[in-house]
Amino acid sequence: MHFASDNAGPAHPAILEALAEANEGYAKGYGNDDLTRAVEARVREVFEAPRAAVHLVATGTAANTLLLATLAQPWEAIFCTAESHIAEDECNGVEAASGGASLSHVPSEDGKMSAEVLADVLGARASGVHAPQRGPVSITSVTERGSVYTLEEIAAITDVARVYGLKTHLDGARFANAMEVLGCSAAEMSWKAGIDAVSFGGTKNGCLGVEACVLFDPEQSWELELRRKRAGHLFSKHRLLAAQMQGYLADDLWRDLAARANRAAARLKAGIVEAGHGDTLLGATPANMLFVRWPRRLHRALREAGAVYYLMDGELEGDDATPLTGRLVCDWSMTDARVDAFLALLPR
Amino acid sequence: MHFASDNAGPAHPAILEALAEANEGYAKGYGNDDLTRAVEARVREVFEAPRAAVHLVATGTAANTLLLATLAQPWEAIFCTAESHIAEDECNGVEAASGGASLSHVPSEDGKMSAEVLADVLGARASGVHAPQRGPVSITSVTERGSVYTLEEIAAITDVARVYGLKTHLDGARFANAMEVLGCSAAEMSWKAGIDAVSFGGTKNGCLGVEACVLFDPEQSWELELRRKRAGHLFSKHRLLAAQMQGYLADDLWRDLAARANRAAARLKAGIVEAGHGDTLLGATPANMLFVRWPRRLHRALREAGAVYYLMDGELEGDDATPLTGRLVCDWSMTDARVDAFLALLPR
Amino acid sequence: MHFASDNAGPAHPAILEALAEANEGYAKGYGNDDLTRAVEARVREVFEAPRAAVHLVATGTAANTLLLATLAQPWEAIFCTAESHIAEDECNGVEAASGGASLSHVPSEDGKMSAEVLADVLGARASGVHAPQRGPVSITSVTERGSVYTLEEIAAITDVARVYGLKTHLDGARFANAMEVLGCSAAEMSWKAGIDAVSFGGTKNGCLGVEACVLFDPEQSWELELRRKRAGHLFSKHRLLAAQMQGYLADDLWRDLAARANRAAARLKAGIVEAGHGDTLLGATPANMLFVRWPRRLHRALREAGAVYYLMDGELEGDDATPLTGRLVCDWSMTDARVDAFLALLPR
Amino acid sequence: MHFASDNAGPAHPAILEALAEANEGYAKGYGNDDLTRAVEARVREVFEAPRAAVHLVATGTAANTLLLATLAQPWEAIFCTAESHIAEDECNGVEAASGGASLSHVPSEDGKMSAEVLADVLGARASGVHAPQRGPVSITSVTERGSVYTLEEIAAITDVARVYGLKTHLDGARFANAMEVLGCSAAEMSWKAGIDAVSFGGTKNGCLGVEACVLFDPEQSWELELRRKRAGHLFSKHRLLAAQMQGYLADDLWRDLAARANRAAARLKAGIVEAGHGDTLLGATPANMLFVRWPRRLHRALREAGAVYYLMDGELEGDDATPLTGRLVCDWSMTDARVDAFLALLPR
Repeated sequence: MHFASDNAGPAHPAILEALAEANEGYAKGYGNDDLTRAVEARVREVFEAPRAAVHLVATGTAANTLLLATLAQPWEAIFCTAESHIAEDECNGVEAASGGASLSHVPSEDGKMSAEVLADVLGARASGVHAPQRGPVSITSVTERGSVYTLEEIAAITDVARVYGLKTHLDGARFANAMEVLGCSAAEMSWKAGIDAVSFGGTKNGCLGVEACVLFDPEQSWELELRRKRAGHLFSKHRLLAAQMQGYLADDLWRDLAARANRAAARLKAGIVEAGHGDTLLGATPANMLFVRWPRRLHRALREAGAVYYLMDGELEGDDATPLTGRLVCDWSMTDARVDAFLALLPR
Repeated sequence: MHFASDNAGPAHPAILEALAEANEGYAKGYGNDDLTRAVEARVREVFEAPRAAVHLVATGTAANTLLLATLAQPWEAIFCTAESHIAEDECNGVEAASGGASLSHVPSEDGKMSAEVLADVLGARASGVHAPQRGPVSITSVTERGSVYTLEEIAAITDVARVYGLKTHLDGARFANAMEVLGCSAAEMSWKAGIDAVSFGGTKNGCLGVEACVLFDPEQSWELELRRKRAGHLFSKHRLLAAQMQGYLADDLWRDLAARANRAAARLKAGIVEAGHGDTLLGATPANMLFVRWPRRLHRALREAGAVYYLMDGELEGDDATPLTGRLVCDWSMTDARVDAFLALLPR
Repeated sequence: MHFASDNAGPAHPAILEALAEANEGYAKGYGNDDLTRAVEARVREVFEAPRAAVHLVATGTAANTLLLATLAQPWEAIFCTAESHIAEDECNGVEAASGGASLSHVPSEDGKMSAEVLADVLGARASGVHAPQRGPVSITSVTERGSVYTLEEIAAITDVARVYGLKTHLDGARFANAMEVLGCSAAEMSWKAGIDAVSFGGTKNGCLGVEACVLFDPEQSWELELRRKRAGHLFSKHRLLAAQMQGYLADDLWRDLAARANRAAARLKAGIVEAGHGDTLLGATPANMLFVRWPRRLHRALREAGAVYYLMDGELEGDDATPLTGRLVCDWSMTDARVDAFLALLPR
Repeated sequence: MHFASDNAGPAHPAILEALAEANEGYAKGYGNDDLTRAVEARVREVFEAPRAAVHLVATGTAANTLLLATLAQPWEAIFCTAESHIAEDECNGVEAASGGASLSHVPSEDGKMSAEVLADVLGARASGVHAPQRGPVSITSVTERGSVYTLEEIAAITDVARVYGLKTHLDGARFANAMEVLGCSAAEMSWKAGIDAVSFGGTKNGCLGVEACVLFDPEQSWELELRRKRAGHLFSKHRLLAAQMQGYLADDLWRDLAARANRAAARLKAGIVEAGHGDTLLGATPANMLFVRWPRRLHRALREAGAVYYLMDGELEGDDATPLTGRLVCDWSMTDARVDAFLALLPR
């Protein structure tokens, strides 16, 4: 009953097989091999973006920091929500990679910024040389609160950004999970909605460690390549990354895995409602991540019974009654049996 | 009628005289001259801090960024208010100088953070490797809203910081103006209240361009020296800086100039009240800076009559009735006559 | 006949097996899993260094830049040879990761610096605030010229560094290959010879992508951990790295693989001598890398016959007679048959 | 008898007068005042460059680091000589300001690089993603060895740079002294010889602390402005800088002061030759700086008699006979009497 994160589960066997297969004989290093070329082309195909620049890296933080460092100037503010991974979970990675760009928090609701609030924030920002200059806008979908931007919401945000000539970045650590919710294509969720750059995640959705940096305008491709190199994110045995992405994108595996994770979360949610705890569910969480507000005693009982997940705002130690927020994430390998075992522990 | 900023006025003649006097003959460069030694000692004396490290620089941004880069690690968050100069007016200077530290905004009231809110913010911060780590706390007094921290408020804030082992920095661009309000000593407003480092301002209070970086614990003095050098802030003809600070601290000139500026602002405030506009004054502003909420038409009329000051939240162009916030700052050279001329323009 | 680099070959099957085995079920993310704990302990055991801090990363550039950024201050010079990987092949990675430290080149012979020359360079360096301050010394073994430092040479270098209180770093991208040449232990080649930090390579010697950052004094372990995180080098599915290192260090596989590579290179060298080209071999190259000085026509013929390797100082295009330096590297998977096939192409 | 540096002398009285004059009444801050506008225009006039961007700063290190950070990308190498101020005397300032660009040393003779050697160095540099990329070329004239580039030499160097599409920077801390030697115009010594950016020095030549960053192509002017701001080099009371530059450029004062300094050095040199020590003079030193190779006992005697200057390669303590290099710099205020007093101390 492991609901801590979708990065706690195993890689899908097909990913390992692709890796084993790619491991034969010699290949040029540093991404100059045929497999890498083919996989980059495949990512372009998936995004229906024949001109896009594609660079593979091994971690989401690498993808986010390299892309944002490429899009932002060191004297700019990057606009994001306070809950975003780049603000809360990368230990100043963006500030470091960019040479000192700052993050400016756009007030959010349910983990999402709205185009209106973004417009207010951008409009209120002082001009002139003194304040950090307006820089790129970065959103995440699935958000860190489990919500998903609609295509209209994304388009409205990128419209606002464009008014100020700002680029937009989508942290897609759970890109496939959001797509499944929206029932749309990768292109629709990105450049067709005005997005300039995507961190296209594989790691949380069944890979070992691979993400694609996708820049729809390839003009900054060489800059990104140099940034990847000097940050130590260019793999010599690059086929390690390429093979994973190859396996991931073959036969719609990536969409299948995301659908599985989303279905498991839906089953979990339905079970919680059925058990009479529907009012403890927080926010709109249509993908593979739920948030529940339960008394500490319940969290404690679940932990003791073997359930693993994060508490967002407190510790297991303390009085029984205080309500604490728990985060429940389902990965592709989550089974109905494990979900049901967890649900069986809930009081009715 | 120039109320735009205390950096728009002239330097005091005594500062220029000190400069001219120091300009005779040869002197060792880079701060190795006798005058610099004497002035550093004098700053220590003023602060009753015989061990303190004192480094002179020419701008407030230099003082703030060098001190905070010395106190903070690149993976830390520096806690400040959203209105602070380091957040709003240094174009990511702290992020750049520190190698990527971030600024974390503590909610403020009237430009000040409270010890309680700071404690909440620090307590809620996630531990572990993912989030930016807790770093130094930086406050400003006189604040950017014209308010002044009491000694008790400063001590309460530094107490909270100490619980987490965090250093505290005071941006004292208007240090003397705040001291005059409190009627206290430089030591009382700094290390006796728990402050570890001060940007001790001279520029806004009658100098040409000089600030002292004061580190009460001299352990990081050499690091600060190296940072000053490589940032281009170590002057070869260092007596240019030292002479200004010499003139500034001689015969209590610095306190006298601050008292003059504060008195001018008090006269301005009293006149506004007397003219029946007391309810348009914003916040508690006991030093040399006022904020007024007036309809655009009034701002426009004043500007046309020759008054110069900043609007904080809008432009002169637009409809007549919208209320806009104006900032009125008095420098040491502000005369009663100019204040009265301004007041005479107000409708009664 | 692929002699381009030891990173062009496949990973050893045992590495892939270890990976597959580790991929079962759930594991805590970000290196908090049991396997990672065990593997870190195993690295300590291999180095006979029970207190050492061990952090796994995926690339050599990550290991070098994170370790040197931890050891060096931004205002310091790092002393290395002009041929070193950090100087020539990391696209300013060290300068970036360290926040602006510089590299200072120590004149070298056969790819190695000597303690004497290092002492001269350090002694001649100006003191005072102006010049970059003396910082860590970084050496590489096997060097980029194929040579190997003796234990005495390493000890002499670290002795000189210690005179100035400087830390020493060993870029061990080919650590095992050097050890095989010296017939020593990992401890003897590192801390017993005075080395403070090692980039312990796995990637070039049969892994997919894993290196261990080893800090013998664990005091800076948390700093390194934070640097790894914010640089995007902390893997969420960290067992991907741990499993590789587990397989690598099991049953002396790492030493076995290095021995194979070295033996292949020795066979290649012997064959070149036997073919009458002994005088075209450059430098002392006892490990798995050779350098040959051949006329362009020979390089061209070899390339046409299917041999793959780097030219160090020119292109295949051009006149026939100009001598060009070729680099021949053998990886663990190099077979006698392939070596002999290459040798058969040489004129006699 | 103070020959330590041209930054050890006083500012010229006209500079102080200009400052005093500019100090009247109120002026807009941060360079938005009329005087600054006029002075920037005057610098353009002096350089016959009506489109040039001009930004004043207070120190030479500020000018060099801001200009080079603007011209170079963080993944590039800046080509300079090993003796250059940016390499030896700015404590990694360029590396820091640029976000990690590196300095690559071009072998020099007499403090100068030649176009031929530069071409060799640039040609030999590896292409591809691994090595630091080719970046701007930076030269200094008067060099740190007292030599002066001819116009032909400068043009040849910028021609080579242009082949690779590289920008060129001239560190003109002693720009006027070099111009006096060449008898040319500011335009001839800069953009007419192909230079893209100049650090135009005032501090060493009679000002208190002012240098102009001159960018002949104004396209990057706003970037430089933002860099100046966030580095703490934008003065609020900017007229402090502008007034100095105004006084400096009025009535050819700057050329007059440089001529005086050069004449004093020429007298010193002639006296040394006359005293029979001509063979102890090092290099071609036509401007205001000489280097002499004298036994330690002579340096010691001179120091005891009151002469002040730097030893470049040793200390006063030690055996009598060892020859040591002394540097003798004349500033604008050096008098014939002081030169003659020094010469009188030399043995004949």
